[in-house]
Amino acid sequence: MKMYVVGLGPGDPEYITVKAVNVLKQSDIIFVPGSSADRSISKNIIRDLAERHGFSDTETVDLEFPMTRDREFNRMAWERNVSMIIGAVSSGKTVSYAVLGNPTLYSTFSNILEDVRKQGVEVVFVAGVSSLDACSSVAGMNLAKGDESIAIITYNDFMKRQRLDFDTVIIMKVPGGSAMIEEARRRFPEFRSCVYARRCTMPQQIIRDQPGEDQADYFSMIILRR
Amino acid sequence: MKMYVVGLGPGDPEYITVKAVNVLKQSDIIFVPGSSADRSISKNIIRDLAERHGFSDTETVDLEFPMTRDREFNRMAWERNVSMIIGAVSSGKTVSYAVLGNPTLYSTFSNILEDVRKQGVEVVFVAGVSSLDACSSVAGMNLAKGDESIAIITYNDFMKRQRLDFDTVIIMKVPGGSAMIEEARRRFPEFRSCVYARRCTMPQQIIRDQPGEDQADYFSMIILRR
Repeated sequence: MKMYVVGLGPGDPEYITVKAVNVLKQSDIIFVPGSSADRSISKNIIRDLAERHGFSDTETVDLEFPMTRDREFNRMAWERNVSMIIGAVSSGKTVSYAVLGNPTLYSTFSNILEDVRKQGVEVVFVAGVSSLDACSSVAGMNLAKGDESIAIITYNDFMKRQRLDFDTVIIMKVPGGSAMIEEARRRFPEFRSCVYARRCTMPQQIIRDQPGEDQADYFSMIILRR
Repeated sequence: MKMYVVGLGPGDPEYITVKAVNVLKQSDIIFVPGSSADRSISKNIIRDLAERHGFSDTETVDLEFPMTRDREFNRMAWERNVSMIIGAVSSGKTVSYAVLGNPTLYSTFSNILEDVRKQGVEVVFVAGVSSLDACSSVAGMNLAKGDESIAIITYNDFMKRQRLDFDTVIIMKVPGGSAMIEEARRRFPEFRSCVYARRCTMPQQIIRDQPGEDQADYFSMIILRR
């Protein structure tokens, strides 16, 4: 028993790999996880590909992944998702699970990987362009060269750290929009460049090195560079 | 004046994005940097795409990027490369510079980005699937979930650090083949998983969690996970 976890890339349908297109095209069923907001991005990408490559009749199934503070509630929903996936794989269908970005980096699938494996399913990851790669590319910033180093941390983790002895620091899941640039600069003034990047390659893309008037958005990061 | 720096992905020609294919297809000239070993990988990918998409007549130009200990010698070669690129862009041609992986992450272009910009050229990065994303996907390993953190460091940097308070550590440019797994385990026994990954998605791919008989290879990394 086997299933595919397919990276759709950062949002622009052109940033999908040829491999991901081929796997989706061969699938009988495509699971689309997430909250309603990110799911609509994934679904737009899949719809676009389905039209171009002639697989518009492929069944897509929404999977709700609550991320509330109630871990028991989340757990139950995730277990329901695992059951649905196992049901589809067991029936002999070719099953894909489509995520934004790269599937090994902060994807919804990371929460259920071990559970799916325990049921005897071989998980095949199809790498995609991550939001990090997309945001640094759109911002025109090197992340690292030579012997330079990078730290990737969430905003929650960032607020706990006293030292960041890296050349580049990428703060994921920034809660407050580009206003958070000031917070990052205040805490770590040794970084010369600070860029807020949101939804890179998508129509709502924002790149700023000064605080602006934008709204908070889950798909956002701050890149600090020495 | 504008040029494209295009990520070809980790090595398998299927791991290129649709966007990268389109940019290469529209190019008049494609610069292919690197040593002879990695350049042959890039050239195979480009040749494969050129045949499939009908741009086999596009001019490709090799660029030698020495990485010797003699920084002055390297610098002179890099300046020659910048001159060649500026010459092509100035002539009004559509110019691409094709790199393996993702262009903002340890690519040859990082060494000349500022010089090219100083000459008035707008650099447009086309993000690609990085070797990190490819190796973790092939190894079937999550890099991060929830509030987990990642450090990306080179082997030289790794040997200097006394502490690594991250959930995942990726050691790039590992010099000695999978034998280095023992070194990594000895220095940081707190990491439960240790995987050596080389040339993922390429025919010479190796994934090992125990030291093996393989040769050293520049395109290799170790992933440590708590």
